[in-house]
Amino acid sequence: MKRNLSILFLSALAGVAVFAGPDYPITPANITDVAVTGGFWLPRFETNRVVTVRADFDKCEMARIPNFTNAAARTWGTFKGIPFDDSDVYKVIEGAAYTLSTHPDPRLEAYLDRLIAQIAKAQEPDGYLYTARTLGFRSFDEKTGKPAWGQTMMGPVRWSNCGSSHELYNVGHMYEAAVAYMQATGKRTLLDVAIRSADLIDRTFGFGPTQIKMAPGHEEIELALCKLYRATGEKRYLALAKTFLDMRGRKDLRRTWNANLQDHLPVVEQREALGHAVRAGYLYCGMADVAALTGDSSYVNAIDALWENVVGKKLHLNGGIGAHRHVKYADARLGSAGEAFGDEYDLPNENAYLETCAAIANALWNERMFLFHGDAKYIDVLERVIYNGFLSGISLTGDEFFYPNPLASKGGYRRSKWFGCSCCPVNIVRFIPQIASFAYATRGDVAYWNLFIETDAKLKLSSDSVRLVQKTEYPWKGASVLEVEPAKDGQRFALKVRVPGWAVGRPVPSDLYSQTVPASEGDVAVAVNGAAVPLKLDKGYCTIDRAWRKGDRVEVTMAMPVKRIRAHEKVAADKGRLAVERGPVLYCAEGVDNGGKAFDVRIAADASFADADVDVLGNRLPALTTDAARADGAAVKLTLIPYFSWCHRGAGEMQTWFAEK
Amino acid sequence: MKRNLSILFLSALAGVAVFAGPDYPITPANITDVAVTGGFWLPRFETNRVVTVRADFDKCEMARIPNFTNAAARTWGTFKGIPFDDSDVYKVIEGAAYTLSTHPDPRLEAYLDRLIAQIAKAQEPDGYLYTARTLGFRSFDEKTGKPAWGQTMMGPVRWSNCGSSHELYNVGHMYEAAVAYMQATGKRTLLDVAIRSADLIDRTFGFGPTQIKMAPGHEEIELALCKLYRATGEKRYLALAKTFLDMRGRKDLRRTWNANLQDHLPVVEQREALGHAVRAGYLYCGMADVAALTGDSSYVNAIDALWENVVGKKLHLNGGIGAHRHVKYADARLGSAGEAFGDEYDLPNENAYLETCAAIANALWNERMFLFHGDAKYIDVLERVIYNGFLSGISLTGDEFFYPNPLASKGGYRRSKWFGCSCCPVNIVRFIPQIASFAYATRGDVAYWNLFIETDAKLKLSSDSVRLVQKTEYPWKGASVLEVEPAKDGQRFALKVRVPGWAVGRPVPSDLYSQTVPASEGDVAVAVNGAAVPLKLDKGYCTIDRAWRKGDRVEVTMAMPVKRIRAHEKVAADKGRLAVERGPVLYCAEGVDNGGKAFDVRIAADASFADADVDVLGNRLPALTTDAARADGAAVKLTLIPYFSWCHRGAGEMQTWFAEK
Repeated sequence: MKRNLSILFLSALAGVAVFAGPDYPITPANITDVAVTGGFWLPRFETNRVVTVRADFDKCEMARIPNFTNAAARTWGTFKGIPFDDSDVYKVIEGAAYTLSTHPDPRLEAYLDRLIAQIAKAQEPDGYLYTARTLGFRSFDEKTGKPAWGQTMMGPVRWSNCGSSHELYNVGHMYEAAVAYMQATGKRTLLDVAIRSADLIDRTFGFGPTQIKMAPGHEEIELALCKLYRATGEKRYLALAKTFLDMRGRKDLRRTWNANLQDHLPVVEQREALGHAVRAGYLYCGMADVAALTGDSSYVNAIDALWENVVGKKLHLNGGIGAHRHVKYADARLGSAGEAFGDEYDLPNENAYLETCAAIANALWNERMFLFHGDAKYIDVLERVIYNGFLSGISLTGDEFFYPNPLASKGGYRRSKWFGCSCCPVNIVRFIPQIASFAYATRGDVAYWNLFIETDAKLKLSSDSVRLVQKTEYPWKGASVLEVEPAKDGQRFALKVRVPGWAVGRPVPSDLYSQTVPASEGDVAVAVNGAAVPLKLDKGYCTIDRAWRKGDRVEVTMAMPVKRIRAHEKVAADKGRLAVERGPVLYCAEGVDNGGKAFDVRIAADASFADADVDVLGNRLPALTTDAARADGAAVKLTLIPYFSWCHRGAGEMQTWFAEK
Repeated sequence: MKRNLSILFLSALAGVAVFAGPDYPITPANITDVAVTGGFWLPRFETNRVVTVRADFDKCEMARIPNFTNAAARTWGTFKGIPFDDSDVYKVIEGAAYTLSTHPDPRLEAYLDRLIAQIAKAQEPDGYLYTARTLGFRSFDEKTGKPAWGQTMMGPVRWSNCGSSHELYNVGHMYEAAVAYMQATGKRTLLDVAIRSADLIDRTFGFGPTQIKMAPGHEEIELALCKLYRATGEKRYLALAKTFLDMRGRKDLRRTWNANLQDHLPVVEQREALGHAVRAGYLYCGMADVAALTGDSSYVNAIDALWENVVGKKLHLNGGIGAHRHVKYADARLGSAGEAFGDEYDLPNENAYLETCAAIANALWNERMFLFHGDAKYIDVLERVIYNGFLSGISLTGDEFFYPNPLASKGGYRRSKWFGCSCCPVNIVRFIPQIASFAYATRGDVAYWNLFIETDAKLKLSSDSVRLVQKTEYPWKGASVLEVEPAKDGQRFALKVRVPGWAVGRPVPSDLYSQTVPASEGDVAVAVNGAAVPLKLDKGYCTIDRAWRKGDRVEVTMAMPVKRIRAHEKVAADKGRLAVERGPVLYCAEGVDNGGKAFDVRIAADASFADADVDVLGNRLPALTTDAARADGAAVKLTLIPYFSWCHRGAGEMQTWFAEK
């Protein structure tokens, strides 16, 4: 907490404008105010801080950071890689900054300072920052002499191919890193780079007669500009974010039917999630942010409908989105798309794409939807992502990564240390530290308890601050305790305790998936200092409005039976199949536990499950066993493990949606 | 005149804003309203229109225009030449546009349209136009691998080396061409390119916290932005011109002591002309324009003092400025300079540099000084330039050019068809057509008759317009007639007739040069319809204020004795020497007329001169003969020819400042 005070002081010294405009009605917990102290997530946070930050930087030092040092030295012709590689470095800086927020580390900070100094030098005098062009990168096919992929992507000159150049995407990630680093250290070094960049882009793009009228091909800068606006108070950045939103799908300005880039319709008219799922998720985040910061409800109407569309028809059970590696839409005008949403209910398993970055985008979007509406259903989706389709993206060791996260495999998948396009590893490193801040939020004198994570947190309420110390065995067991420590005894505020949808019969807030062993509200109990609280749910919350005293204990207890999940009948891939969940965790069967075979096993609808343990790289994880059958009818004692932990013991078969025997 | 009306109509259709702010108190004649009809200048104008425009474009087609067509096609790596070569093309377009103003030529206009279309395509999406960078030009020394000259000049990235990149200089010339083409044809094609460029630069440079704080290394854009402001009414362009002026010499913003670029002091504090003479001349033009358009008198104080400094101490007799190819200033902080002003009274002859472009800049500056102050002394300087040190820069054939214009030679000079740095040929082609517009000007109901050129002109006075038809044998004889045709009989206005300084004893408006055969006012006579007008001179003008009737004839008669010129005693190079002038024309002796020797001939202070003719490439030019002596005392009948016509009959000796025998 002391560190946070000193940051505020440094920020004031540095002349950072205080943000004072309208924003989301609900305020998330400050990332620097929530320390993870134990339980399931502490190893994940520590692995991220100690292993993944270092592993990502090591990889970047080999192939991405040299582009910055070369650009700083203007050694033309030395660019290596893909033009969007710049963003990878920014994302690791953002992640590292979050770890500094809670774990000061002078050596890491000094390393970041040196790196940021090179980035500042790599920036051109007018604020342009894109090492590929500054280094004169050109890539031509040696045989034909025609422009090769990297060249086609970046276009021949600045801003000439915004649809794919990632010029705006790259700096968007830089803005996020800059705000994170300023908040963590009080240093404006990277923020100044961000401001110079954003000012250039603000001058360059817009509806003015000689400004460029293009939409960023890969959305990201919209939400980043909102962060930069909050950090600096500069309203032009918010206006620019809105401009970029409003530039999409404008057939009066540009010929565009590119659904892959969500550029087929004006965003306020979009009702179906289409195209590249990461782009879409970031776009919806940007729309939510701009709606919150400007009060423009047309964006809210659109993202509400898009959310219903995704959660009702395009969400995989692991929380993943973007079903297909490649999709060609039936409406020929929409063209084709990559790493993209398919048609409604088109949710394949073995061939599901479900990029780790898309899971992150989905979580970030649902957090924002919660901040708008204060409904726990959005946290239900977020929670489904973080325990399943996101968490599978990173190995328990913290240094191997999945790009796609399918729900079944015949053995072709394996995590990698790094990728040519390595967006996912560096997205993970910046996402994990944010999870703690999703645990709580406030609205005036209302405190939201959203996630069950062992934490020591401080929340700022209207009346005064409050410290919340949480103990939990989640996600393995359903008991959590929150110790309340108000700033002064008798402080009155409402604590809204989230009762997860899975605990009251709704695995997702739509009819896309249902539980065949429905729970009732009786399976959940909330108590204060041992006295039961009536479980009257409002938007998924049980509200405890009282005068709090130091040491008050709130206990939540949820039964965690094993549940069988069925998909909506229109989901062809899951027809006649069931999946297994316990609490927020999706289970799967893996070959290594089951005689090498898992893809084709069958489970009876009324099968019973027994607890078991499984050792995954030294981690004892709760497993399940049940009587199942092979495709040929042979009986087999099937072991199921948490889906996120699959593929740690060699590549092999995996299944989540089991045919019913 | 019909053409001009249609232009106004087209301009209105195209939505060109009407300029209505403050400007110079005096308005020059519209270039489209003055047709040269005969006499000395008609062959020069026709040769420029028919020969020089074509010759310059032919050269540009070989080596400069391909950079635009390649940039339009984004064929990276194909740039040839020097990064400032773009400006050459713009300057020929400007010159060609002026010829279209008076001589419609559909084939030339179609050629320009095609060329402008390529320039528009060569412009990057955000308005950046600089073919060298768009084509990825890099130039490295093959042996050392270090950046070569062209690379060092342009700097590694956009705007990183504004001191020498000519990024702003190039587009400045483009703006001038764009305005000229719009005025000539009503077409906005190039003007739209100019607006996109100027908007980009306006967004990029300035005193804002994240804008670039650099002064253009080669001034030009300042005066061009003023033209663009007048053509569009866009006040930002005027403000940007002022910004660029005020950015110079700002040691609080940038470390700068670069006198070569006039960047050693804030411009309003400059009192001595220093550095590169073309840059300086254009800077002073920009200061005059901004002063006129904003009413800021601090610029006027500075350029008044600078003018006194140049005309009093740094002006060569041929009107040239920029005495040295290279100069190292005594004040070490000022460094060294090229094509530059030397110290006061440091006016060498054989080694004088006196670039043709500097003569043009000097003339353009003096025209502006006249528009400010309404004093004929500025036109005296302008006239000295156009008949001597400018005109020597182009051959009588219109296709060969001098870069430096020295006042003596031992035979090493010869005009060239083109240069590696070919600024002069393309500056000449756009300057000659402007000379006609310098002949007249207006201020309310006052008409200025400044130059004696055979023309048919229309002037707009406050009351009504007036047509002026001039006949003259100037510069060879001193009689000129102006036939006045007012819009309606009895129209009252004042006609100010310029009486040149040379005709009343002052060859230059300073004590730098004096005439040893002083003229008196009696040598000049002005009459209206045969009746003498009292010769009461005010600021060098004889004013005739009356009600005019169609057919009124104003006659000016000036005696044109041969005069001996002596320089101020502090001019070491001219000590004990005299020069010969008649009317506005400086004479020289050339080897070809004088037995191969001219450098070392001597003339007596009281020598008498006889009229003669000389044939220069088929042009009969008035020559002089006199009794002179060789260095060894041998008598010689010396032939002198107009200085501007030297070096048309082979390279050889030449002299203007003759030692006295």
